[in-house]
Amino acid sequence: MDMPGFNPVHALMLFALSIPGAWATTQASAPMSAEASDPGALQWMTGFPPSDDKLIGQPQSNYFSFPKLRWTVCHIRELLPTTQVSRGIGAPDPLPYAPDNGINSISFTPIGSDTPMGWQESLSANYTDGLLILHHDKIVYEYYNGCLNEAGKHAAMSMTKSLTGLLAEILVAEGKLDDQSKVATIVPELRDSAFGTATVRQVMDMTTALDYSENYADPEADIWQYSAAASPLPKPSDYSGPEGYFEYLQTVEQNGEHGDAFGYRTVNSDALGWIISRVSGKSVADLLSDRLWQPLGTEQDAYMTIDAKGTPFAGGGLSAGLRDLGRIGLLMLNKGQYKDQQLFPESVVNAIEAGGDKKAFAKAGYKTLPGGSYRGMWWIFHNANGAYAARGVHGQTIYIDPTANMVLVRFASFPNASNSKIDPTSLPAYQAVAEYLMKKD
Amino acid sequence: MDMPGFNPVHALMLFALSIPGAWATTQASAPMSAEASDPGALQWMTGFPPSDDKLIGQPQSNYFSFPKLRWTVCHIRELLPTTQVSRGIGAPDPLPYAPDNGINSISFTPIGSDTPMGWQESLSANYTDGLLILHHDKIVYEYYNGCLNEAGKHAAMSMTKSLTGLLAEILVAEGKLDDQSKVATIVPELRDSAFGTATVRQVMDMTTALDYSENYADPEADIWQYSAAASPLPKPSDYSGPEGYFEYLQTVEQNGEHGDAFGYRTVNSDALGWIISRVSGKSVADLLSDRLWQPLGTEQDAYMTIDAKGTPFAGGGLSAGLRDLGRIGLLMLNKGQYKDQQLFPESVVNAIEAGGDKKAFAKAGYKTLPGGSYRGMWWIFHNANGAYAARGVHGQTIYIDPTANMVLVRFASFPNASNSKIDPTSLPAYQAVAEYLMKKD
Repeated sequence: MDMPGFNPVHALMLFALSIPGAWATTQASAPMSAEASDPGALQWMTGFPPSDDKLIGQPQSNYFSFPKLRWTVCHIRELLPTTQVSRGIGAPDPLPYAPDNGINSISFTPIGSDTPMGWQESLSANYTDGLLILHHDKIVYEYYNGCLNEAGKHAAMSMTKSLTGLLAEILVAEGKLDDQSKVATIVPELRDSAFGTATVRQVMDMTTALDYSENYADPEADIWQYSAAASPLPKPSDYSGPEGYFEYLQTVEQNGEHGDAFGYRTVNSDALGWIISRVSGKSVADLLSDRLWQPLGTEQDAYMTIDAKGTPFAGGGLSAGLRDLGRIGLLMLNKGQYKDQQLFPESVVNAIEAGGDKKAFAKAGYKTLPGGSYRGMWWIFHNANGAYAARGVHGQTIYIDPTANMVLVRFASFPNASNSKIDPTSLPAYQAVAEYLMKKD
Repeated sequence: MDMPGFNPVHALMLFALSIPGAWATTQASAPMSAEASDPGALQWMTGFPPSDDKLIGQPQSNYFSFPKLRWTVCHIRELLPTTQVSRGIGAPDPLPYAPDNGINSISFTPIGSDTPMGWQESLSANYTDGLLILHHDKIVYEYYNGCLNEAGKHAAMSMTKSLTGLLAEILVAEGKLDDQSKVATIVPELRDSAFGTATVRQVMDMTTALDYSENYADPEADIWQYSAAASPLPKPSDYSGPEGYFEYLQTVEQNGEHGDAFGYRTVNSDALGWIISRVSGKSVADLLSDRLWQPLGTEQDAYMTIDAKGTPFAGGGLSAGLRDLGRIGLLMLNKGQYKDQQLFPESVVNAIEAGGDKKAFAKAGYKTLPGGSYRGMWWIFHNANGAYAARGVHGQTIYIDPTANMVLVRFASFPNASNSKIDPTSLPAYQAVAEYLMKKD
């Protein structure tokens, strides 16, 4: 499964550097091992004050390059302004435990390899910072490493998109958002942009046809202008580009026919964030709090990065606790039901599970995901188990397997952003766990 | 009681503007009323996106000027990088309620006035955002207005100092910090600064003799260099001054004899933050979490602003929930006891209640606080009730009256920073409430 190495948070953070070479450092053929690159072992930001060689700060220290990345993913709020996703002030609802040590003995064969790999070895191979497995609503496996612990928060990267998409699917199912409307009828400011003539559904499923490049190797790529516009830091005095996500989105031009092909572009998620905020009167951060964080008995507030106008980064700005994303995975698995409450219509999850337009998806040429699709900003595997996932660069995932009654959440800080490098030792491992758990049923 | 209108957060935020005039706007003789300046009524940051005239952002919009101030005090994290003061992930311990509506009928005579003022009128007169009164460990009064609600956080301003001081007093009482040591023996980096030859106690009680000006009207005042050094935002390319709190502190020079006179200077608090971090191996934010936020069953994480090296602003960077500061006030009132636990030695509070050097304090010339003192970064009134307080500009206070068994916490966004403008309608009100509650006992 080859997904683009897109990382808008990464871009956001690197924009001020204007050194595309920084990206290349994460492509090194032999990066430090997970153990050697552990942020504790490297003593990042230790000491009062940290010595210069242990310092990770704004932005000269290139904080999103590996191995600094392994510290940064737990400390985004210390580097950028953020807005809270409030859990409220009540007592959290603890998740029940039924630990299964057998998972540690699972082995599997990585994609493209002949040599079996053990479960525990895979954790290091993937620079795993946290891994939670829930089976029949109970935690059967929990693991923390690197910068993360049970009370910590980790960057969710593009998993943020799936939560933005979930909010939109909820509003659609509740009749508050018509997914067949043209975007311009909801957000008139987008009328003259590529989004104006697209339907909300095309934005939700990323089948918009955009003249937009996310090629990091190209200093002229649109992603860099996007990142500059999105920065919450004071702009250089000679900056004359768009200010914030919303102004930038108005500049995106069309290239092709909407609805024709899947094209993974983060700007869709931010356009969708605008749409659902306009419709609901609430920011994406407040919607996440109202619809998910507060009702689910989460343990920790989450937070989102914002632009200089306070707009949350709907395409990649979330940081959250591992177990809290587990709660959201469970809510998906249980089709919107939490305890005795139906938090949103079952049809929301049914629609995501059914998937998006496979033909449009096929045109995007994901060679390792034949027959897959993308719907409501979730990746649908269309495998035998009906699994689907939220995914983010550097190895983030919420992986939901309805057949195995399993939710798996992983935070990671893999040196390379691209999931295509991480999937070979991950997706077969998830399938092996699913099969192991199904045998126990 | 005339305390200097010092506001380091204010300064921190204004430094990039280099317009001392911005400060003057808060001195306007007839500012908008509390009702007219309500941030909801003014619709700050509403809309997707907010229109330019509703926008409060980095830093061109001068976000700490009144009336924007009334929004900003609840939204510091959206403007600056911050670090979490974690409450942990357990259930909060709810405070019991015994509401007393009689408080609303209290009246008092403001200092310098012949006309009685009612309690409710005083709330508006002081631009009160939140007010909590605890009597015998129960909430008897709770009030929210402006930007604040029960799940919100508000800038604590210089009340932060008192928590830094409390941490230091705890370490002293536990034998982990010798308050008679010279600072240079603990933080050798401060050896050549004014702090090097001062004792820890002199720093804790602000009787250091510093060549340091906090005169905002003077563009050459030290406070501006301090603020520039402390900014977590990328420095201008031509910046050559100190980087961060700790480097700045090393540049502060001595002027006079330590121990001779009280001098309220925020740099003392940040020097103390360095001292307790060096001694404990933990940042002030982590110490607050370990010693107060986690054991006290708080409802909300708090947070602190930081410099570009991740150092929390020990002199003014805290934002927290109203009830959580109430919990800390109760802990003081109960001399370190929380439920069946003694969280720190009783002697910590006894020492603060006993106060600091009155002679040294008198030399500072606080005309409205005759006989007062300052100890462990708390203000001691030495009044009949033995009251003492944490105080911050624009009207913040934790006011503890051991005789009345009362804790009062107030968050406010008074247009003028100086407490000397706020005390006339506040301190007599607090005394009136104390007397009212004592009559009930």
